[in-house]
Amino acid sequence: MRWRDVDHEACAVTLAAEVIGDRWSVLVLREVLNGVRRFDDIQGHIGVSRSVLAQRLRDLIAAGVLEKREIRPDGDRARHEYRLTAMGRDLQPVMHALMDFGDRWLTGRDEPTVVVRHRGCAAQVHVTSVCDAGHVIDDPRELYGEVGAAPPPAVPGPTAAPDLPADASR
Amino acid sequence: MRWRDVDHEACAVTLAAEVIGDRWSVLVLREVLNGVRRFDDIQGHIGVSRSVLAQRLRDLIAAGVLEKREIRPDGDRARHEYRLTAMGRDLQPVMHALMDFGDRWLTGRDEPTVVVRHRGCAAQVHVTSVCDAGHVIDDPRELYGEVGAAPPPAVPGPTAAPDLPADASR
Repeated sequence: MRWRDVDHEACAVTLAAEVIGDRWSVLVLREVLNGVRRFDDIQGHIGVSRSVLAQRLRDLIAAGVLEKREIRPDGDRARHEYRLTAMGRDLQPVMHALMDFGDRWLTGRDEPTVVVRHRGCAAQVHVTSVCDAGHVIDDPRELYGEVGAAPPPAVPGPTAAPDLPADASR
Repeated sequence: MRWRDVDHEACAVTLAAEVIGDRWSVLVLREVLNGVRRFDDIQGHIGVSRSVLAQRLRDLIAAGVLEKREIRPDGDRARHEYRLTAMGRDLQPVMHALMDFGDRWLTGRDEPTVVVRHRGCAAQVHVTSVCDAGHVIDDPRELYGEVGAAPPPAVPGPTAAPDLPADASR
């Protein structure tokens, strides 16, 4: 089966892009990931309009990546904060890879915007492409995509006619 | 320095989201990554209108992630294809992480849309969060972000007052 035959509408990337393929959604997720959880605080930091923010928050809740919680009601006034769900936390590698890309190509600064570290050992954390044989891959031209193939053989080895994306062949 | 003090407009994620924080841009990149490089082929597979596709391609070229090349001119008619630049290839981990997220939470299928493999050894490739001490991290609550800190000490150890995103503390 070739990439062109894949049902685009059922593709994981298509579906994921519907959830976070929007600049404001990415920024809202970044805020909540960084512990900024109140509407006013998110709005103040990213500079989006209140109506757009309200819509994005509704969309992210409907998609299942955020939840809204009531906290410390102050007299008659309930206050809310937005939290990541387990599904939302699973977006952290996407956000980390996006940040790495931005740090490498777009900020023009030598140091990262945020250094991500591991609690307990404080070592820096990197998003890495690693194969099951333990190789770290820096160049995506070393990769190929297998579309709709049978499960891989028990002993790793070249499979018949791997789908070779032309971009990866150079 | 705390996250709220970070200049949002200079943040790596903000800048990266301006480049690919759009559903169609993500899909165009997916196509080119998979070797689909002609306008008509991209348009046919993702079902976008020609005018929107033309705009997205212009934007991605302006951003530096795609380039347009003339190929095999056929008489009077020049033909073009779109290729990833080195900068564009550096988005592959973002796309892979997005696909993993979609496969895990959105497709409802047990098998991945595409199995990414390493040329030569054919082993499957995964996007993984790994710390410099060699730990693989599955739960982002094990992570924290250090914003604008001094370079880390030579001997890894807890640094003073790490910025603890509230979401990561549970």
